[in-house]
Amino acid sequence: MKFTVTKDNLVAALRRVMNAVSPRSTLPALSNLLFEADGENLVITATDLEVCVSTHIPALIEAGGATTLPAKKFNQICSGLPVGDVTVDCSDDDMATITCRKVRYRIHGLPAEQYPKPENFSEDWSFALPARDLVHSLEKVAYARSDDDSRKQLSGVLLSIRSGMFTIAATDGRRLALVERVLDSDGKVDGDVILPNKAVVELVKNMNQEGDIKIRLSTANVAFETQDTSVMTKLVEGNYPNFRQVIPDSFARSVAIPRLPFADALNRVSMVVSENSSAVKLSFSAGQLVLSASSVEYGEASEPVDVSFEGENVEISFNPVFFSDPLKYLDCDQLIIQFNDELSPVQLSGDEGFLYILMPMRN
Amino acid sequence: MKFTVTKDNLVAALRRVMNAVSPRSTLPALSNLLFEADGENLVITATDLEVCVSTHIPALIEAGGATTLPAKKFNQICSGLPVGDVTVDCSDDDMATITCRKVRYRIHGLPAEQYPKPENFSEDWSFALPARDLVHSLEKVAYARSDDDSRKQLSGVLLSIRSGMFTIAATDGRRLALVERVLDSDGKVDGDVILPNKAVVELVKNMNQEGDIKIRLSTANVAFETQDTSVMTKLVEGNYPNFRQVIPDSFARSVAIPRLPFADALNRVSMVVSENSSAVKLSFSAGQLVLSASSVEYGEASEPVDVSFEGENVEISFNPVFFSDPLKYLDCDQLIIQFNDELSPVQLSGDEGFLYILMPMRN
Repeated sequence: MKFTVTKDNLVAALRRVMNAVSPRSTLPALSNLLFEADGENLVITATDLEVCVSTHIPALIEAGGATTLPAKKFNQICSGLPVGDVTVDCSDDDMATITCRKVRYRIHGLPAEQYPKPENFSEDWSFALPARDLVHSLEKVAYARSDDDSRKQLSGVLLSIRSGMFTIAATDGRRLALVERVLDSDGKVDGDVILPNKAVVELVKNMNQEGDIKIRLSTANVAFETQDTSVMTKLVEGNYPNFRQVIPDSFARSVAIPRLPFADALNRVSMVVSENSSAVKLSFSAGQLVLSASSVEYGEASEPVDVSFEGENVEISFNPVFFSDPLKYLDCDQLIIQFNDELSPVQLSGDEGFLYILMPMRN
Repeated sequence: MKFTVTKDNLVAALRRVMNAVSPRSTLPALSNLLFEADGENLVITATDLEVCVSTHIPALIEAGGATTLPAKKFNQICSGLPVGDVTVDCSDDDMATITCRKVRYRIHGLPAEQYPKPENFSEDWSFALPARDLVHSLEKVAYARSDDDSRKQLSGVLLSIRSGMFTIAATDGRRLALVERVLDSDGKVDGDVILPNKAVVELVKNMNQEGDIKIRLSTANVAFETQDTSVMTKLVEGNYPNFRQVIPDSFARSVAIPRLPFADALNRVSMVVSENSSAVKLSFSAGQLVLSASSVEYGEASEPVDVSFEGENVEISFNPVFFSDPLKYLDCDQLIIQFNDELSPVQLSGDEGFLYILMPMRN
């Protein structure tokens, strides 16, 4: 195998796949990247047997073939190369000679045959949406998933299609975040799949956000494909809990609050909470909301924010971590807070299709 | 005590002192910052009993006095404040009310009396030099000090004055870095002091590099003073070894090498070294230097660099870590490498007053 690519293309491709390399693996080949040169493209693949990322770049291929090279070392070497053309010439014993201008490396690879074959993927159905929308939606909900690996389903993110409506949701049992959008597709079937967190991180971090992303589904796998890269992942087995039952049907109160000033105030007031006194109190009165908190360890903090609130005074307390998470990822100028009373679920919204439900703390 | 300062001044002052706060301390007051308001200045002090940093900012002082406030929490709170005036009003029981625009905090302090008094400092003599020169000189030598705390003297950096020559030196026994300059002072006495590493880090990281720095020396302490900040530190006890004896009197060979291309090549070739094969070989021949390295673990690398070399071919091997450290901090275009043979000490120079000696590895 012998190919030539530009250093910039190669480094960009490596950035897209490196995250999927297994940090420690019992199978030596899994510490390597798979290189396949064929036609006019070099395909680079990384997998940890759960998530598999494949990307291709234009290459001048003098001799087709395949090999694997140590991922970390190859990536480090390529990052340090001068700008220019990089030629990789791989002998039959998987010894690769890498040359770029005057620098020359020879590094040990492993035969491509030792690299795990991708699972058979038989597509049941597929649909496409703008990549940017998918990534932003994942960001808007993913923080609400559970970190508890013993609750396998809740540690992932739900992708659900029902009657032409595409929902992305995450919950850890104490709060729920979801984004819904009408799907512009021929909508063959309804169905739910649970995406493991590693795939979510991969998509958010490395997916090219220009153009469309094609989502292809099979029974046990899902593939996300952009023009140059495909991210394939096993799905989390099992059923996602019925999250819709926690969304109240109606709310007695609705308040619009400027999102950024509120987020800043919440951040400031939260600075005095401690592990034992973790509540921030929101005190609504006519035209004003006062955020306050106190702890024996640090002291007290309070800050007013102007809001359009009418009606009886009401005080609701929250764990500020759960309240500030969604604020970071929204784009809206005005945050809508809706609630019935001090102890019932509260809803945050603002961005189109976005909904966030959380439980207040007892005062 | 009650004072008002601008948020920007306050945050800048905190940045200058925070590093000196003890990360863990048995004395509660040492987790705090000392605030002293007097006249038209607020003085903020942090110490871990080894290094003491004091800085002042202009303040509107309504009531003079002193208190201490929790360093980490106060710094966090101030960083999050909106831009504007910050007023701190401290009651007799050291409860501080901090207000800035609409946000209001009350946090617990400790009496200023609980804060350790600075050591009595009786200046023996002092001299001044441009702050930028001192900081750059420390950067150019500090990496060569020893990390081994059992060799107390070598873990610090030597400041030495002999016959009007000011030398800053560091060595770990395997290499030596020094910077020398003629001192524009009335040069009262000769003397050596050893600066502990924490003070070196403090000076390099946080010292304002504009204007002059005044160095004041006593028997057991040294103080570095700029317009707004003073860094005082205990000195390391004991005598610094006679480092001059490792500097060869003369060299048979001298080669000029473009510093940055050489540093890049060295960095690239070093990528294949391993713990067991840690040498990079420099092979000098007419007009050319070839850098090369190899290890069983990764493979081989080589890169030529054009140099002005004449004479017999020679090969010298180095641990690339020791060779690349000084290259990062020099400013010169051309690095001068001087040596006698493959196994004797090698000298690097280039920047005015700078000298670096290291031992080759056996091939």
